[in-house]
Amino acid sequence: MALELTASKGGTQPKRGVDGLVALTLTDMDAVNALIRARMDSPVPVIPALADHLIAAGGKRLRPLLTVAAHRLAGGKGDAGTKLAAAVEFVHTATLLHDDVVDSSDLRRGKVAAHLIWGAAPAVLVGDFLFARAFELIVETGSIRALGVLARASSVIAEGEVLALSRANDLNLEHETYLKIIESKTAELFAAAAESGAVAARASEPRIAALRAYGLNLGMAFQLVDDALDYGGATQALGKNAGDDFREGKPTMPLLLAVQRTGAGEASFWERTVVRREQTDDDFRRARELVLATGALQATFDLAREYAASAKGALAVFEAGEMKTALEDLADFAVSRAC
Amino acid sequence: MALELTASKGGTQPKRGVDGLVALTLTDMDAVNALIRARMDSPVPVIPALADHLIAAGGKRLRPLLTVAAHRLAGGKGDAGTKLAAAVEFVHTATLLHDDVVDSSDLRRGKVAAHLIWGAAPAVLVGDFLFARAFELIVETGSIRALGVLARASSVIAEGEVLALSRANDLNLEHETYLKIIESKTAELFAAAAESGAVAARASEPRIAALRAYGLNLGMAFQLVDDALDYGGATQALGKNAGDDFREGKPTMPLLLAVQRTGAGEASFWERTVVRREQTDDDFRRARELVLATGALQATFDLAREYAASAKGALAVFEAGEMKTALEDLADFAVSRAC
Repeated sequence: MALELTASKGGTQPKRGVDGLVALTLTDMDAVNALIRARMDSPVPVIPALADHLIAAGGKRLRPLLTVAAHRLAGGKGDAGTKLAAAVEFVHTATLLHDDVVDSSDLRRGKVAAHLIWGAAPAVLVGDFLFARAFELIVETGSIRALGVLARASSVIAEGEVLALSRANDLNLEHETYLKIIESKTAELFAAAAESGAVAARASEPRIAALRAYGLNLGMAFQLVDDALDYGGATQALGKNAGDDFREGKPTMPLLLAVQRTGAGEASFWERTVVRREQTDDDFRRARELVLATGALQATFDLAREYAASAKGALAVFEAGEMKTALEDLADFAVSRAC
Repeated sequence: MALELTASKGGTQPKRGVDGLVALTLTDMDAVNALIRARMDSPVPVIPALADHLIAAGGKRLRPLLTVAAHRLAGGKGDAGTKLAAAVEFVHTATLLHDDVVDSSDLRRGKVAAHLIWGAAPAVLVGDFLFARAFELIVETGSIRALGVLARASSVIAEGEVLALSRANDLNLEHETYLKIIESKTAELFAAAAESGAVAARASEPRIAALRAYGLNLGMAFQLVDDALDYGGATQALGKNAGDDFREGKPTMPLLLAVQRTGAGEASFWERTVVRREQTDDDFRRARELVLATGALQATFDLAREYAASAKGALAVFEAGEMKTALEDLADFAVSRAC
């Protein structure tokens, strides 16, 4: 469920994407990266080795980016924002490590999953280590409220993971429950990332709530688009990992909508491929056709666009400026990468 | 590595054991147990089911007992002590859940290990959930310092687990490294349990340090005795789980001392049974004989007694009283159960 931040090809919406945000947070993110390196260190060699495998591979660090951006947008000074951002990345990395063990995933961020190199045991324990280190970092900011935000997010994430696990391969998953799952597993940490940055900046209550809402809606948009891209965009070439969710029998929004819309006619196809996971090489092609033909893919993108619009709307309380524009662009990017 | 708190049979030292402490903390521990029940709840049914399996099975709750006792001894009022105590038990339960997955253990607290009933994935995730809930509870006390104490303990525990894993079946484990491992894996949480109780009571710095030292030394004594009891007491009947450490090839103090003291004469025996783990039914009997004959068992108990004495000595700063006596009795019990 890695969030691809590479530029998408084609489409009609603005494509400034994350470049503005990256440029505005360059100094902060250098500090975040230095902090991540320093705090994942340990005299026990396997810990930095395993952590580095995952962290060094790691994309644009969207979640810590959100934290430092929210912190600056809310007028924050000093290093509390960068400490919280490093903590957010540690929480995220810990959940990825545990996720990969739980799902027995083979790949993570384009590299062999850590548990396949070092074994499941160190992957679980280094996850625990990073999680604990995250809280040590937050303690250093002295903000009990930021601690509460990230502790709460962490229990919500774990709860969401267990819920997802207990409803895996379930064609009858209610749409509300699916949205609850992605809210817990993905959007909650986006929300906490932005909220904690605002909290550390001692922003007003409406501004803290606004940044939380921005993060939550952005996270929903990103995850819905991720789930849709697993069935391939409507026009572009299929991504290299397309079909992973289908092959795992994961009930995501495009699949659930397609199942609902194809009704009794395809019930045995979905039952065989998703519930029993008895798939032939051709099944993904057929699933994708059904997801496209029923409009399930388009409906998922439409839903993502609504969340992205809500994310942008949540920023209304902030005065115009380059950081606000950069966050608006990020929300556009979340969905434009899908066109 | 469960700490057996049942009364030991025979021996020459006082046997008041934990009864005094249990009696003095009855009201607090009722509150702790109620809090544990309330906070492990979740709308996702597998979470309370799995957590309850482990928590309901759970002995005398020694670590939370330490927290509430330290809190009261240090003059603490209010419910911060009970909240921290519940959090300490959650951290402990989370590490047990992850430990059992990591070690592929069959039993925990005399019951089938949770991961064998629900699978490894929910066991990992419910561990994460309880860990996060622990931090939510600590946040409620408003004590950033207590948060720091328990976050630090959590990363030290994980670090110790990884270190132990990387030196499993290693006959050349240095004694200092062994002591470092049990300090990290066991004693650190005892120390943090007592320290956080004192912190929440706003005790003076010397008193906070004293309660931390008490917990740390008590934890060392308990773990050394546990490791010794795995080879059977010198006189009493073997406990039902005796031999588990040996069969796993775990390098504990009695084994390391016996290996050192038997020298080249038994090198191939230890190499086969501990390093290669090729064991016959009779091997544990022979290992136990060597551990007894070399005085390795006695030396381990002697070391435990020194830690217990240090634990009692650490309480010197506190005036005489029934809580202080109860904690002294607990330190005696830690080693007297071994006679």
